[in-house]
Amino acid sequence: MHIGLVGLGRMGNNMRGRLRDKGLEVTGYDPNPEVSDVASLAELAAAIPAPRVVWVMVPSGVPTTSVVEGLAGVLEEGDLVIEGGNSRFTEDTKHAGLLAPKGIHYVDVGVSGGVWGRENGYGLMAGGDAADIERAMPVFDALRPEGPREEGFVHAGSTGAGHYAKMVHNGIEYAIMQAWAEGYELLNSEKNPVQDVTGTFKAWQRGTVVRSWLLELLVRALEEDPGFDDIEGYVEDSGEGRWTVEEALNNAVPVPTISASIFARFVSRQEDSPSMKAVAALRKQFGGHAVRPR
Amino acid sequence: MHIGLVGLGRMGNNMRGRLRDKGLEVTGYDPNPEVSDVASLAELAAAIPAPRVVWVMVPSGVPTTSVVEGLAGVLEEGDLVIEGGNSRFTEDTKHAGLLAPKGIHYVDVGVSGGVWGRENGYGLMAGGDAADIERAMPVFDALRPEGPREEGFVHAGSTGAGHYAKMVHNGIEYAIMQAWAEGYELLNSEKNPVQDVTGTFKAWQRGTVVRSWLLELLVRALEEDPGFDDIEGYVEDSGEGRWTVEEALNNAVPVPTISASIFARFVSRQEDSPSMKAVAALRKQFGGHAVRPR
Amino acid sequence: MHIGLVGLGRMGNNMRGRLRDKGLEVTGYDPNPEVSDVASLAELAAAIPAPRVVWVMVPSGVPTTSVVEGLAGVLEEGDLVIEGGNSRFTEDTKHAGLLAPKGIHYVDVGVSGGVWGRENGYGLMAGGDAADIERAMPVFDALRPEGPREEGFVHAGSTGAGHYAKMVHNGIEYAIMQAWAEGYELLNSEKNPVQDVTGTFKAWQRGTVVRSWLLELLVRALEEDPGFDDIEGYVEDSGEGRWTVEEALNNAVPVPTISASIFARFVSRQEDSPSMKAVAALRKQFGGHAVRPR
Amino acid sequence: MHIGLVGLGRMGNNMRGRLRDKGLEVTGYDPNPEVSDVASLAELAAAIPAPRVVWVMVPSGVPTTSVVEGLAGVLEEGDLVIEGGNSRFTEDTKHAGLLAPKGIHYVDVGVSGGVWGRENGYGLMAGGDAADIERAMPVFDALRPEGPREEGFVHAGSTGAGHYAKMVHNGIEYAIMQAWAEGYELLNSEKNPVQDVTGTFKAWQRGTVVRSWLLELLVRALEEDPGFDDIEGYVEDSGEGRWTVEEALNNAVPVPTISASIFARFVSRQEDSPSMKAVAALRKQFGGHAVRPR
Repeated sequence: MHIGLVGLGRMGNNMRGRLRDKGLEVTGYDPNPEVSDVASLAELAAAIPAPRVVWVMVPSGVPTTSVVEGLAGVLEEGDLVIEGGNSRFTEDTKHAGLLAPKGIHYVDVGVSGGVWGRENGYGLMAGGDAADIERAMPVFDALRPEGPREEGFVHAGSTGAGHYAKMVHNGIEYAIMQAWAEGYELLNSEKNPVQDVTGTFKAWQRGTVVRSWLLELLVRALEEDPGFDDIEGYVEDSGEGRWTVEEALNNAVPVPTISASIFARFVSRQEDSPSMKAVAALRKQFGGHAVRPR
Repeated sequence: MHIGLVGLGRMGNNMRGRLRDKGLEVTGYDPNPEVSDVASLAELAAAIPAPRVVWVMVPSGVPTTSVVEGLAGVLEEGDLVIEGGNSRFTEDTKHAGLLAPKGIHYVDVGVSGGVWGRENGYGLMAGGDAADIERAMPVFDALRPEGPREEGFVHAGSTGAGHYAKMVHNGIEYAIMQAWAEGYELLNSEKNPVQDVTGTFKAWQRGTVVRSWLLELLVRALEEDPGFDDIEGYVEDSGEGRWTVEEALNNAVPVPTISASIFARFVSRQEDSPSMKAVAALRKQFGGHAVRPR
Repeated sequence: MHIGLVGLGRMGNNMRGRLRDKGLEVTGYDPNPEVSDVASLAELAAAIPAPRVVWVMVPSGVPTTSVVEGLAGVLEEGDLVIEGGNSRFTEDTKHAGLLAPKGIHYVDVGVSGGVWGRENGYGLMAGGDAADIERAMPVFDALRPEGPREEGFVHAGSTGAGHYAKMVHNGIEYAIMQAWAEGYELLNSEKNPVQDVTGTFKAWQRGTVVRSWLLELLVRALEEDPGFDDIEGYVEDSGEGRWTVEEALNNAVPVPTISASIFARFVSRQEDSPSMKAVAALRKQFGGHAVRPR
Repeated sequence: MHIGLVGLGRMGNNMRGRLRDKGLEVTGYDPNPEVSDVASLAELAAAIPAPRVVWVMVPSGVPTTSVVEGLAGVLEEGDLVIEGGNSRFTEDTKHAGLLAPKGIHYVDVGVSGGVWGRENGYGLMAGGDAADIERAMPVFDALRPEGPREEGFVHAGSTGAGHYAKMVHNGIEYAIMQAWAEGYELLNSEKNPVQDVTGTFKAWQRGTVVRSWLLELLVRALEEDPGFDDIEGYVEDSGEGRWTVEEALNNAVPVPTISASIFARFVSRQEDSPSMKAVAALRKQFGGHAVRPR
């Protein structure tokens, strides 16, 4: 099989490598000529056999929409675009709609695995028509981890289902990371009898209820930098967590841990907290409690 | 009526003033001779007529227990101790038990009102026997605000009920302050069309659902220091909030807003967050996301 | 002054009454002929003097947009539409844009006070141009509570600021109600020494830090139905709370108490909780813990 | 090695089985004669060689303390008691103190793994003196999972450290389960494009960031009962979660996800919510909003 791949950043580049390792032919396009195989989307379309399969792996939002629009101009009826970026699922209907008038098919895929996917394979969740997904199965089989297909790939539903599943995956991931972080802070609190914190996490890797890959990464991180002395408690978020809470609000689903994990990140990025200034000011007003001057 | 008052700090001193304004005779004792009327608890006992009423207004914990023990040594059968500090309600059974063998009665009182109580009166919640509370009613009537007695005083229940009610009062207060603080931060967020933040809070003082004394204090604070430029977002807690959550855990009562308000204070006091270091470290491990070096 | 008022439901009808009491002339329109003064928007426009002021007070969303569109067809250059419903602030730019091509001015107003506003007056927050707001001031002065104007009315900012302020007001209100509710549940828990729960809330009305109108309403509700035996713990939400959390997400503002108050409402409406089924199922899997069969 | 084991309930019985499979000699005592090897603690002491090692595996609280007291009466200087139950870490100092006057040593161990431990081995966290732990190592090696010792066992610290580590482990576990549960509810919400919910969770088992044993159990549970139609959303808690939050309060550690997971369980057990009755009552008071009659 010979496919096109648009976007050769860290993720796209890793995926091209894995696909080639697995025996697929891949022509990649990226605005950066140093990593690109061709000079334009038009050249990409010319380089791969029809009916074409083109995987899009660029940042979500305007970049992804621009690429889909560009592909609408160079692909032909019967071709298939697979959008594998971290797009909001609400974008998929729009993107499919940009391609449908030309008879170009569309599948959305949520991809998990980060920098480890190159070696371990990626968890994949796909949305779209069964026939399109069937056609792209050699690509999915090459990208997903070894083992039973259903343990690393799912056809989750119609258009948007892949990105929706990935959004929920990331919402869960946020909350799980926060759970680990709270436990870490407790094990480092002053009045606690645990002396070997790294060893404790390490000992949870086999036999316990909480054994998991994130735990293994936490152990790895602690072994590299016990006490996390070299890093700051400052955490970005890349959108999926917020979208998850917004969908929860749309669907009247209570998500206390997912929302808490996002709010903790918001606070981590503030130099000073307007909220807590207000609380300090109130306490001073009614109780004469001291405030910290700046 | 002539009563004794132990503890002449900010609160105790204000209360002595209010009681005297209302026509009660008050002999106060404090280790600080500059504010004390007598030189010892024994002198205090000698100065006031039996059966005595002695109000204790010292910091909770060891100081309060010490004073109760001291009073057990100098008071007589039929005397009454009123413990009005910010004690945990679980202390009251112990304190009553220190006095009961000598026939000394005990009433616990939760007091709200802060530095404004001197002028406006204090909200009072009492726990103990009806006869003891009846005996102390002239004191309660002098301390509570003008208006119907039942709008500023309650005999809430048996021993401990006064401090329990005060504990819950403060738990609610913490959560309400946090609610105001979140609203304040939203009105100061970048992408919002409200330009007159102080004016908006000011306009909520009449007619709205949220009109309240804390709102009036927030307006006063904003008028003194718009933007809270002079204070840091650093907030202490004095125990009642934690106790409230502990009682919620004991009683299987969900308290998401009260707990959130306490956790926000904990975070406000951290120079850096161990939790968020752990999350940052995890993100770096799986996604190669940048961390902020220290 | 003679103004038009579209929408004569509970809120609109009360407002017409208050405006007339205060000496304004009001022509009201509602699809329901029993309460309407005129038969159509066109008749409304014909009945009031130019330059006209028309207050819109209909449900948010499609109904409000329809009325604004209708008014765009019957009003003239220089007229002023005041949108006082519970609209999301993001609607205001759209509504202003429907009127601007015809030279019709637009002001958005957030209104608080509920069924009590008829008698006590309404808290008002306005967004728009200063000249338009000045023109409508007699209306605002009639609707707002007695007392200083700035304690019941604010020109919060440009278009949308009135509804944004009201949205934040309601988000705060949600969290404050939840705080009261948590305290109520604690005072009713089994292992607590407070026997007179209604009396305790009653006693907080004067002198305490938490004194407020919502507390007075809670006391009133408890006096009508102590124990709330006649009502179910089922709580709707009308949108503003969700919007507040969405704006918090847009602005990276942590809102743990506001979100908790909304999630509590979501849970209150569920017959059974899918989340908690999943937790029960997990516990059974790893620990053999019993589950409750349905 | 030949050890004693007190408590042959589900956990103790499984552990006896695993220890025997691994070649250790085990004499078990339980009040239930059908499972017990001896008739009393005294017979147990007589049956095993000195210096003795006795593992205690009974319910926490009074049962555990009673057994420790009983062992203080039948064991001798130099013997070792290992307390492996789900005790609060604050109990360990007390239990060690009951044995120390007789020269009996004490080690506390937190045990994770549930019903699967019999086959997979148990994750173990121990607190106490290094020499005592070294002496018991054959027992730990038999109980822990195959693989490197440090991935299933840790000497976490001094007395109490084992149970403290287990308490934090369970707090994290609570929050992680809640995270999964929120994701499950989102994937089952009405307005979402995912049709194959079980398949989606199944596909996360390889390659994704969230792959873990709890996920595998969730998949297993969903395959047994898709939709969880047979179980109720009612979840008990066994104490460790509450203790974790209490320790967080003692140490000023913010634990928003752990506390949220416990509060969700509290709510799941309520027939009706007092909190939400109060909110419904408030909304009726100020807005005339309908309440649901009971």
